Amino acid sequence: MKKSQISSALSDFFFEYETPRQVLVRNRRVGVVCRLIQLGVLVYIIGWVFIYEKGYQSTDIAVSSVFTKMKGVGYTNVNGVERVWDVSDYVFPPQVVLYLLMNSRLSLFQGEMTGVCVNTTNTCEVLAWCPVEDDRIIPSPPLLMSAENYTLFIKNSVTFPIFGVTRSNLVEGIDADYINKCLYHPEDAPLCPIFRLGDIVKLSGFNFETIAQEGGTIGIVIDWTCNFDVAVKHCKPKYNFHGLYGNPSDTGQTRPSLGYNFRYAKHYLENSVQKRTLLKVFGIRFDIIVQSLARKFDIIPTLTAIGSGVGIFGVATVVCDLVLLYLLPKREFYKNMKFKYTDTPIQVRSRQCAK
Amino acid sequence: MKKSQISSALSDFFFEYETPRQVLVRNRRVGVVCRLIQLGVLVYIIGWVFIYEKGYQSTDIAVSSVFTKMKGVGYTNVNGVERVWDVSDYVFPPQVVLYLLMNSRLSLFQGEMTGVCVNTTNTCEVLAWCPVEDDRIIPSPPLLMSAENYTLFIKNSVTFPIFGVTRSNLVEGIDADYINKCLYHPEDAPLCPIFRLGDIVKLSGFNFETIAQEGGTIGIVIDWTCNFDVAVKHCKPKYNFHGLYGNPSDTGQTRPSLGYNFRYAKHYLENSVQKRTLLKVFGIRFDIIVQSLARKFDIIPTLTAIGSGVGIFGVATVVCDLVLLYLLPKREFYKNMKFKYTDTPIQVRSRQCAK
Amino acid sequence: MKKSQISSALSDFFFEYETPRQVLVRNRRVGVVCRLIQLGVLVYIIGWVFIYEKGYQSTDIAVSSVFTKMKGVGYTNVNGVERVWDVSDYVFPPQVVLYLLMNSRLSLFQGEMTGVCVNTTNTCEVLAWCPVEDDRIIPSPPLLMSAENYTLFIKNSVTFPIFGVTRSNLVEGIDADYINKCLYHPEDAPLCPIFRLGDIVKLSGFNFETIAQEGGTIGIVIDWTCNFDVAVKHCKPKYNFHGLYGNPSDTGQTRPSLGYNFRYAKHYLENSVQKRTLLKVFGIRFDIIVQSLARKFDIIPTLTAIGSGVGIFGVATVVCDLVLLYLLPKREFYKNMKFKYTDTPIQVRSRQCAK
Repeated sequence: MKKSQISSALSDFFFEYETPRQVLVRNRRVGVVCRLIQLGVLVYIIGWVFIYEKGYQSTDIAVSSVFTKMKGVGYTNVNGVERVWDVSDYVFPPQVVLYLLMNSRLSLFQGEMTGVCVNTTNTCEVLAWCPVEDDRIIPSPPLLMSAENYTLFIKNSVTFPIFGVTRSNLVEGIDADYINKCLYHPEDAPLCPIFRLGDIVKLSGFNFETIAQEGGTIGIVIDWTCNFDVAVKHCKPKYNFHGLYGNPSDTGQTRPSLGYNFRYAKHYLENSVQKRTLLKVFGIRFDIIVQSLARKFDIIPTLTAIGSGVGIFGVATVVCDLVLLYLLPKREFYKNMKFKYTDTPIQVRSRQCAK
Repeated sequence: MKKSQISSALSDFFFEYETPRQVLVRNRRVGVVCRLIQLGVLVYIIGWVFIYEKGYQSTDIAVSSVFTKMKGVGYTNVNGVERVWDVSDYVFPPQVVLYLLMNSRLSLFQGEMTGVCVNTTNTCEVLAWCPVEDDRIIPSPPLLMSAENYTLFIKNSVTFPIFGVTRSNLVEGIDADYINKCLYHPEDAPLCPIFRLGDIVKLSGFNFETIAQEGGTIGIVIDWTCNFDVAVKHCKPKYNFHGLYGNPSDTGQTRPSLGYNFRYAKHYLENSVQKRTLLKVFGIRFDIIVQSLARKFDIIPTLTAIGSGVGIFGVATVVCDLVLLYLLPKREFYKNMKFKYTDTPIQVRSRQCAK
Repeated sequence: MKKSQISSALSDFFFEYETPRQVLVRNRRVGVVCRLIQLGVLVYIIGWVFIYEKGYQSTDIAVSSVFTKMKGVGYTNVNGVERVWDVSDYVFPPQVVLYLLMNSRLSLFQGEMTGVCVNTTNTCEVLAWCPVEDDRIIPSPPLLMSAENYTLFIKNSVTFPIFGVTRSNLVEGIDADYINKCLYHPEDAPLCPIFRLGDIVKLSGFNFETIAQEGGTIGIVIDWTCNFDVAVKHCKPKYNFHGLYGNPSDTGQTRPSLGYNFRYAKHYLENSVQKRTLLKVFGIRFDIIVQSLARKFDIIPTLTAIGSGVGIFGVATVVCDLVLLYLLPKREFYKNMKFKYTDTPIQVRSRQCAK
């Protein structure tokens, strides 16, 4: 008996189908208002959420690796002493954040710490490298004005871990032949990975002469905004440049720390005496910042958007019901059409059948 | 004929409005239970999702750039030999991860690779820099105890790419005057970007004497948790400090690699003979970690939250229906009120009209 | 009067409960189709969204800190000149991106910039370090083939800021004893943080002899994919290795920039004459890339998934309704069961009651 009951309940459940009963209100005003609201919701869901904001896609942020190489030879003539500067002289560690020496004040210090450098005056004796550095003078014009024509080569590899896609900034068409002769230009050669320093500085809003003398930091942003619903080859980097600190176009707040410089010492041993050359170097620091956002169709956000869209549709119905049941002149009539009351069933039936 | 049919169907569609027919159950128990469930859902959606979790906002993570500068002069006296240390002597590359030399064992090696350093014993001859380094002794007290009073200046620029907002840790009010005289303090000066090393070490849970002797790694976390629905000026950094490896408060698992040290060689050429000074340096490595999470009103998550909230409301109704149709004594009555059956229409009508 | 009205409306609201009236269609075809659609939606929501995609969890990405230490001693014999290389000679800055010198061409330059190096020919005089470097020869076999047996020790600390969890790659069980004797192996010792260079190169798809001669970049990916709904101790790193640029298995596009090398100068002062040794170093650059994704139960995505699932359910009902009202032979009958018309109430009633 129990078994047959269960199987009967199951067959009932499977062969039955529930659908809500509806009142079809034939009223021009309500009809138009409601259809417009529903249309608005539909346009929002399809137009805004799906087409404009691509709500059917999930997102992924890349992990990346950057490699740089700078090329160019500089020449300086300080007080008649000529000198040649090549990459190994003016680029500090060959990494993501790389530093280009632009200007420097050179002073050779003796290694023995005398501590009695100045003792004819009444000041206290200070133990220090000797002679003491004079911090006030910035050489002008800058030493390495020729750096304007140096070039910077950037290799960048990005991997989107969730989507399993790896891309390099040497995209399709950027082969050895092209790299040997190209130079980055925002419109004419936006994919060439070789950048002229003068161009970078100009595009970032700095003035080359100022930055060459006092130093500064330039952010080179490599922007990977990709849509993997189209072919992967359309996923290409975009390069942007902007001054990070002490940019002349910044508001006053960052002014206190204009310029970029640091002290750098080279150590020598001469006749078993430790000596060092202290350089206060002014230069351009390049921060290569990889920024990425990839999108791809995903069933979860798609169905979440559809499901919540249906919910918003329900809100539209609630709004229309409020109009129908509280604002229209015939609201009592509609209320009776829509609702059935449990406590006064006879009255309800009679009303309903009387209509 | 076809055309008029279509236009008629269209006008029908536009001037009609469908609203579900409802049973209004006047039953105190069911009413209270259902209203409470619905109220709970509403409180959850408005209170939790919207107000507490700010479900109407989308999020963005920043790309960032960091610049550091350390200041301070140290003095050492090893076996009567006095020496002065300034920044260029004790700070290794001026970058995001910066390294402060705190202690070191110095040994001068001869450059010629003799390979016969030790041959009076019966051991095999080994080709090595000579003399061989003695790895067992860590100088104590540490060389640069005065480093406690050095200061570290951090400039940090963050850009939230989706929201298009760029901020610097030199926020409004942190101008040149303030920077010249301020020193970071968790309560009194939480926005001053100049940090005393002793303070950093203390706040990170380390003991300065221990870390100065054996070395260690300290993470300086710059936390940008911002809400761009209020004025951008309220988006301010918070600084946290914690030991990353070999922190005394860590559990036993990280103990094996307590301390931080590496070997560092300076190369010389004396009388055409290559020599080098090998330093085993013990020091503090500062990892500057930028952590960011910005939120801003976005129409998509707002409507997704509302839409799925309506869905949860639907679940509440289903729960109430289960109570109504399966638990109440008058459940058969309510079942007949709610459902109309298609297979026995006459019986249903009669029942319905009989009530 | 006003007060009693409000309290009456409130009591009405609280003691009433609205439930939609339904038509129970007893039709095998429609029933089975609709139940199958509903079952599909249910299986999708529970099986796919909840169990497979873990839609009840929110995600977090870690901030991380990496520390490396390399060990190994190399020996070279160039034209009868023996030399020993230890870590401080061949590892460039001890950081996240570390560089291992594998091969180099050495040339000693004079410091005085003569500018008249070559003047017996008719070429223009060039001011340069002298003698000029010959760029064409890559020494073969590579200098440091023994590097295959060097070991790299990686310490990595990750913090998931939203979940407030900090983990180290020295997980439970990886203690001092284990580290002293272990060596990473993909299957036998997947958690040992000490890596043999030869293994890394092989696992990344490179050939050691090629990379040792021409250089290359290897990405060491530390993958933290964690589920914090289970015990934190199950959150363990996975190590992957792959060639980043100039990998032989890459497609043609990255070929132009095969190999990895840079120029590096060591400066000397001999008899007050500046000299430098310029090294063109070929080597392996290791990029340590930390990739992370943690998941944890969160009430918001859970209820969003449920809520939008209910919405999808609603779509299933709409589909069934379309079948019922437009495709079935008895569609007119079902239409009259489902809809009540407001403009012709008598007709509707009569129809309805006539059934």
